[in-house]
Amino acid sequence: MKDDCIFCKIAAGQIPSATLYEDGDFRVILDLGPAARGHALILPKEHFADLSEINDETAEKVLPLAKKMSAAMTKALGCAGMNLVQNNGEAAGQTVRHFHMHIIPRYENGPKMVEWEPGKLEEADKVQIVEAIKAAL
Amino acid sequence: MKDDCIFCKIAAGQIPSATLYEDGDFRVILDLGPAARGHALILPKEHFADLSEINDETAEKVLPLAKKMSAAMTKALGCAGMNLVQNNGEAAGQTVRHFHMHIIPRYENGPKMVEWEPGKLEEADKVQIVEAIKAAL
Repeated sequence: MKDDCIFCKIAAGQIPSATLYEDGDFRVILDLGPAARGHALILPKEHFADLSEINDETAEKVLPLAKKMSAAMTKALGCAGMNLVQNNGEAAGQTVRHFHMHIIPRYENGPKMVEWEPGKLEEADKVQIVEAIKAAL
Repeated sequence: MKDDCIFCKIAAGQIPSATLYEDGDFRVILDLGPAARGHALILPKEHFADLSEINDETAEKVLPLAKKMSAAMTKALGCAGMNLVQNNGEAAGQTVRHFHMHIIPRYENGPKMVEWEPGKLEEADKVQIVEAIKAAL
């Protein structure tokens, strides 16, 4: 647990939250600034700043938990779809440096979000990118 | 494998792709309509339409693989951040009905995406949402 981390304090129950689910590894809460009704966050209780820090043992549990939450949220909220979003670094929109995964219900005719203008993958650049990433694996 | 699914064919290697990584369970490719340079997709080889269908055994492996890819992509591309995005249903922006996770590199001063206007969580609605989701778990 990191002393100055608000998500550590929420996950530990030291700061109250709208908790949807809790187990030994995670707390799932409602986001106080929701993108849509029912917007939830998966918080590991252990402190990891982001994806680069999370250990594999914890990482393995995130998606099965997201699946479980998503099923219950879909049933409870009657949403039409669901986005999972996990941001790393300020440049990616991460506002709290404690790993968290957003589960965002989407409704028919709701506002656009988590969408982008598709670019084009040029052949020469493609070859360069593939080689560079493979070499770094 | 689902006969009319393009991601099944790509994951199986029947349709060529810019492959960054492959193992028994997954193929990771470059997105042909990238949101940013190096935008990649994790595709399970088995067909699951979305998060509600993926089995836990496969789901467990997605985030550790995303972590591994993200580390290599950060090193190779020099990006400043990374978004993981996984869309479920047309209302959530899912365009191909085969489970996939986007890994989107973000660069300093790049375009905004995967961002939203934060709403407000009203007290009465909060209580209602929490109770409804807990009851559905």
